[in-house]
Amino acid sequence: MTAIDINCDMGESFGNWTMGHDEAVMPYITSANVAGGYHAGDPHVMRETVELAAEHDVGIGVHPGLPDRTGFGRRKIDATPAEVRDYVVYQLGALTAFARRHGATVQHVKPHGAMYSMLSESPEHARAVMNGMLEVDDDLIYLATDMNIYEVARDIDGLRAVFEGYVDLDYRADRSLIVEQELADRDPELVADRFVSIATDGVVEAANGEEIAIPAESICIHGDNPNAVAILEAIHDRVEEHDIELAPLSQIA
Amino acid sequence: MTAIDINCDMGESFGNWTMGHDEAVMPYITSANVAGGYHAGDPHVMRETVELAAEHDVGIGVHPGLPDRTGFGRRKIDATPAEVRDYVVYQLGALTAFARRHGATVQHVKPHGAMYSMLSESPEHARAVMNGMLEVDDDLIYLATDMNIYEVARDIDGLRAVFEGYVDLDYRADRSLIVEQELADRDPELVADRFVSIATDGVVEAANGEEIAIPAESICIHGDNPNAVAILEAIHDRVEEHDIELAPLSQIA
Amino acid sequence: MTAIDINCDMGESFGNWTMGHDEAVMPYITSANVAGGYHAGDPHVMRETVELAAEHDVGIGVHPGLPDRTGFGRRKIDATPAEVRDYVVYQLGALTAFARRHGATVQHVKPHGAMYSMLSESPEHARAVMNGMLEVDDDLIYLATDMNIYEVARDIDGLRAVFEGYVDLDYRADRSLIVEQELADRDPELVADRFVSIATDGVVEAANGEEIAIPAESICIHGDNPNAVAILEAIHDRVEEHDIELAPLSQIA
Amino acid sequence: MTAIDINCDMGESFGNWTMGHDEAVMPYITSANVAGGYHAGDPHVMRETVELAAEHDVGIGVHPGLPDRTGFGRRKIDATPAEVRDYVVYQLGALTAFARRHGATVQHVKPHGAMYSMLSESPEHARAVMNGMLEVDDDLIYLATDMNIYEVARDIDGLRAVFEGYVDLDYRADRSLIVEQELADRDPELVADRFVSIATDGVVEAANGEEIAIPAESICIHGDNPNAVAILEAIHDRVEEHDIELAPLSQIA
Repeated sequence: MTAIDINCDMGESFGNWTMGHDEAVMPYITSANVAGGYHAGDPHVMRETVELAAEHDVGIGVHPGLPDRTGFGRRKIDATPAEVRDYVVYQLGALTAFARRHGATVQHVKPHGAMYSMLSESPEHARAVMNGMLEVDDDLIYLATDMNIYEVARDIDGLRAVFEGYVDLDYRADRSLIVEQELADRDPELVADRFVSIATDGVVEAANGEEIAIPAESICIHGDNPNAVAILEAIHDRVEEHDIELAPLSQIA
Repeated sequence: MTAIDINCDMGESFGNWTMGHDEAVMPYITSANVAGGYHAGDPHVMRETVELAAEHDVGIGVHPGLPDRTGFGRRKIDATPAEVRDYVVYQLGALTAFARRHGATVQHVKPHGAMYSMLSESPEHARAVMNGMLEVDDDLIYLATDMNIYEVARDIDGLRAVFEGYVDLDYRADRSLIVEQELADRDPELVADRFVSIATDGVVEAANGEEIAIPAESICIHGDNPNAVAILEAIHDRVEEHDIELAPLSQIA
Repeated sequence: MTAIDINCDMGESFGNWTMGHDEAVMPYITSANVAGGYHAGDPHVMRETVELAAEHDVGIGVHPGLPDRTGFGRRKIDATPAEVRDYVVYQLGALTAFARRHGATVQHVKPHGAMYSMLSESPEHARAVMNGMLEVDDDLIYLATDMNIYEVARDIDGLRAVFEGYVDLDYRADRSLIVEQELADRDPELVADRFVSIATDGVVEAANGEEIAIPAESICIHGDNPNAVAILEAIHDRVEEHDIELAPLSQIA
Repeated sequence: MTAIDINCDMGESFGNWTMGHDEAVMPYITSANVAGGYHAGDPHVMRETVELAAEHDVGIGVHPGLPDRTGFGRRKIDATPAEVRDYVVYQLGALTAFARRHGATVQHVKPHGAMYSMLSESPEHARAVMNGMLEVDDDLIYLATDMNIYEVARDIDGLRAVFEGYVDLDYRADRSLIVEQELADRDPELVADRFVSIATDGVVEAANGEEIAIPAESICIHGDNPNAVAILEAIHDRVEEHDIELAPLSQIA
């Protein structure tokens, strides 16, 4: 029986501003990437999000961002590897404290936005972050969004790494993603088909019709898609038909 | 043999701004109250401060502040008990992650400035913070700066609490402290005498000549006093003469 | 012919987080209270909001807040009169720079949330802010939300002050407002009736049925009410019937 | 008679953290670059700095930075031209409000640190900032730190621009500056010689002995140099001997 994880960004509200549909989406996923209070989130939101995840037995991961709330962590900052590492360690630790309340710990690290891009482009930054993770807790899993990072992570001695795939976006044949400017409804059946295809065969059809390998043990769903819940319901229906097990990263990696 | 702790605020530099004399003071103390990145400190400063503490076998505590960097955490904010609790949990967790690197954990919590005042004046706020601590780690010690808070802490089931005394400030007969606007040199011998008096007999002479009880297991030294190092040297000389052992809070409480 | 102003809080979005319905509401109002980047807003949002106001010939005011974005400026901070004054001057100046682009200047100052409460409770704080306004531009109008502040403002030599009334909330007989926890639809006809009553007779019916004096030259509408646009349309219909002129503060005070 | 300006960064303290020697340096300079509250400074520091400048008849300029206090504005952020423009407009406006109190206005704009580098490398960013300045006040002077920016500024219709030279750092023959990691004492006589050479002949000797053209109407002095005051005294002595007039930018450009 194949097991696969569904991860989703969570806890991106901040103070009086709300973002996302965390309560609607949480029941359908197995791992949550929780904002750490830099690009989004705050201590209260983190507490609430961790509590919601714990209620649904969802694995708790940290989604650390750059210290740029105005830019939502989407603008690269010319920070050193050591600076980025310390931003990750800080946010990881903060989230861990909220998880402890539920007898839980932080399961994984998935850098957000421009921090992710910086790590993908600079192995030196990526290694600094990954070694920083190991210093905190060597059970932590690095959730890798592209092959550059995945390869760096696999070369770090003792680090658990999982590659994630996407099904609510289209791939190019070179395994890069076609990111739309505007979020739009996605056909739930098509998305669910892709989910099964990656989960069972590790492949998906790219935009040009070519079949490409996606060796993913986790699938990222965009919770802010207008029809995210419909998509997740379609996936749940399909995995039952195909005898695919959904499980948090910690039970897979 | 009497054992007592010396605690001092540390890690209050921020970015390009430096504050305090951490490297000079750390060798003389047994517990460090490390700023958590709200009123002072930042991830890099926290890492460096924790490393310096670890080198000197100094117990690592968090010195959480209110989210008010411009006001250095010295202005009360009309925040709810739950909000203050979450600020403490967040900063405590962040510091813990840096401590893990040295195989250490956070030993104690000592709220800073206006957060301390809020807890002292509102038992509801104090209890929220203390219960929050227990949810994270029930080995944590609450370092209590006045009797109001100390009594609230002792009523919390399962919470370790330590009362701290002051020797580089004068007490009034009602055990309140006479805080000077300007930091000034203190007579090292007088300060060391008080240290011994509290450590061995649990008493000190107030400004009016009256002897008052200070049941302290830790003494707070102001590291930003102009002659802090001379004071600490005098204390170290004196404790040797009197066979008093200096030890971090975790070995006392 | 009676002239009265309609003011509304605007520009409370921040980075990737949106709040309010500024584009829908702006066409119906005559003065905008634009967040200054402390409790809400950011430079980009301020530019866009000022541009929208200028398009609709709406008077541009600053809605300065306390430096507490997480708490949306709704928590009092124990800041001195001089500190609060400088927060207002800073935000006022920043907004002015964006207004200059449209050949406009800032018309009025209306403190937000807890800053407003602090000024209402402490005449010393209120006077510091008002004198700070005069130092920047003595044409500025202070938009006064309650009688405490209005009286302090009228005692400041050379300061223009306008009192504002509320029609989408209920008054108590003592002229305090009954603030609901949850925003809810308001009956547009009732709200429009009150508008006319205040505009023409300076009175409104309190919750207990008593008629109370509201000597307002401006009416505040909550743009985040779910049916704010319906309310504003009803008001516009009614003022036409009653030959009431809507005009920005600068043309009234 | 030759007239030249001396400019210096000022107002870089923040809350409880102090930086620089503003009171000692202000009497010797003619234009102050005042931090705008992003990379350094805060409303209170801005007010105090503007007051100090006004006392000494020093021209008030804004030294806007990127929104990165932890990195002291020294790390490039991947912000759009419009975003950087709005950061400058915001800080410029805020400072203007403090200047109004002294009947003054803001004289010039000199971007700080990484913001300066971004403008130097991207004419599109530079033009956005400069056009933003013109929208606020077309008397404002752009103080240009290198030839790239100076040329962009001179191509902006209606913008006043001044080129600045350096005398407490060494130039390379290509007119780039040799920036030392550590601030160190500079020979006051050598620095004063260079000052005169630039002021009277528009040339200076580069590190390799070559004479290079520095067409500067303003000289930047680093107020945080350990012997900044001695340097400034030597310059003042020398300019008297050579009948060079010191004057703020507004009287030169």
